[in-house]
Amino acid sequence: MDNAAPITLSQQDALTLRYGADALPPAGPWNEHIALLLSHRSIRGYRPDALPPGTVETLVAAAQSAATSSNLQSWSVIAVTDPAVKAVMAKVAANQKHIEQCPVFLVWLADLSRNERLGNAEGTELVALPYLESFLVAALDAGLAAQNAVVAAESLGLATVYIGALRNDPQKVAEVLGLPPGVMGVFGLCIGYAAPEVANEVKPRLPQAAVLFHETYGTPDEAALRAGYDAKLGAFSQRNEISQDNWSSRVLRRLGRITALAGRDKLAGILQAMGFPLR
Amino acid sequence: MDNAAPITLSQQDALTLRYGADALPPAGPWNEHIALLLSHRSIRGYRPDALPPGTVETLVAAAQSAATSSNLQSWSVIAVTDPAVKAVMAKVAANQKHIEQCPVFLVWLADLSRNERLGNAEGTELVALPYLESFLVAALDAGLAAQNAVVAAESLGLATVYIGALRNDPQKVAEVLGLPPGVMGVFGLCIGYAAPEVANEVKPRLPQAAVLFHETYGTPDEAALRAGYDAKLGAFSQRNEISQDNWSSRVLRRLGRITALAGRDKLAGILQAMGFPLR
Repeated sequence: MDNAAPITLSQQDALTLRYGADALPPAGPWNEHIALLLSHRSIRGYRPDALPPGTVETLVAAAQSAATSSNLQSWSVIAVTDPAVKAVMAKVAANQKHIEQCPVFLVWLADLSRNERLGNAEGTELVALPYLESFLVAALDAGLAAQNAVVAAESLGLATVYIGALRNDPQKVAEVLGLPPGVMGVFGLCIGYAAPEVANEVKPRLPQAAVLFHETYGTPDEAALRAGYDAKLGAFSQRNEISQDNWSSRVLRRLGRITALAGRDKLAGILQAMGFPLR
Repeated sequence: MDNAAPITLSQQDALTLRYGADALPPAGPWNEHIALLLSHRSIRGYRPDALPPGTVETLVAAAQSAATSSNLQSWSVIAVTDPAVKAVMAKVAANQKHIEQCPVFLVWLADLSRNERLGNAEGTELVALPYLESFLVAALDAGLAAQNAVVAAESLGLATVYIGALRNDPQKVAEVLGLPPGVMGVFGLCIGYAAPEVANEVKPRLPQAAVLFHETYGTPDEAALRAGYDAKLGAFSQRNEISQDNWSSRVLRRLGRITALAGRDKLAGILQAMGFPLR
């Protein structure tokens, strides 16, 4: 069974969609895998169709193939299909309806509890677990794993969107999924088939000169690069979301008000209550 | 220019290498992209050969195509080729010689400073920045981006290995790379051509039943699943690293001693000093 996605975009077209014709990086090597990565879009509307049998297991095989710090494998994932549970997740995530629409909602977990159970079984106190470092390793490893799952899903013609808003209320997520102490839902991931009517244009990103540096940090051109990107993202927003917001105004609105954190300003204390001392 | 890697492994062979013949997940959909993901190995020895022109830019285009929370793009990356700087990085990372061997060492940055400069330019205080949530978003987005770069690199026949040990001394990394406050090197990534003599067998992972759950957390079979994996990883270690360690003993050694954190037990305080209050 071979479901390889065809190369739908040339290198030139793919880079133009991502950066705009005036901000193309130097042409480098290219192949169909890279074309797939460049074609990513987050999709916020799903058909109800079920995934083919074995799909979740294939995505998890891809996820487990990602690197994991010291092979600790301190992440887990829960596949949620129960409509009642998805409804709770959608409510936690500020009523994002696509969580209820998608056939499978994956909740990616920073999971220090598996290692802790091992320590308990062997009579060894895992003194490194209470540190911020161990939480960060678990969260990052969940991220690397999930990204591999996203690439695998998109290669199969499936759509995805990350749901960071599960962090609005990690304790509610833990309660509904039966998470033990030392386990936290870092983010969710909708998996399914894109509804035909949803926006799916590739979103432009900052020019490479703004994020890729050589040898040392920074560029003297940042303000100009941002202004150019503001124009591009403003046009994208108008085409796709019926808004005229540019990037700068979005960033200022997202980070300039505590209310935009939607409860995540309490994350440190909540994590401590959930078994991550973050020492 | 098409450098697509051929499918070198069948689905059955790829899953057998990753899980062992007795722990195969149900066969799901499959294609050459998924075969590439399953074939991942971390490589700790490099030839000095330079990368083809434009390779770093192609990897960064893949990285920027990954999802980023609210499109904040709060990560950056520095490509390091200077031998003197790579030597400092290798020293920070407990003398990992592959950092000096690889032609390009990418340092992935959680970067809240770009947004902060925007706020300063617009006269808006970004009150959400001092929270743990904002650091976590930046670190996770750096992780998603880097993983796309890894997939792109491996599709080109290049080898990689993540270097979490940059967190042994984030302030030294910041000093050498000229990082402003609010920027931290979350991890490094060696990129290059694998030296012919280095171990490159696919590393087995925990069986899916130990990490993938349905609807709610956990499995009653965890102890048995771990015992089976211990045997597999013990055999892998003997074949590849001339040690007889199984997984459990490695986890206990890594997490059971503060000294194994190699300074990362101080990470929370160091991040605070670097402009991440982690509120």
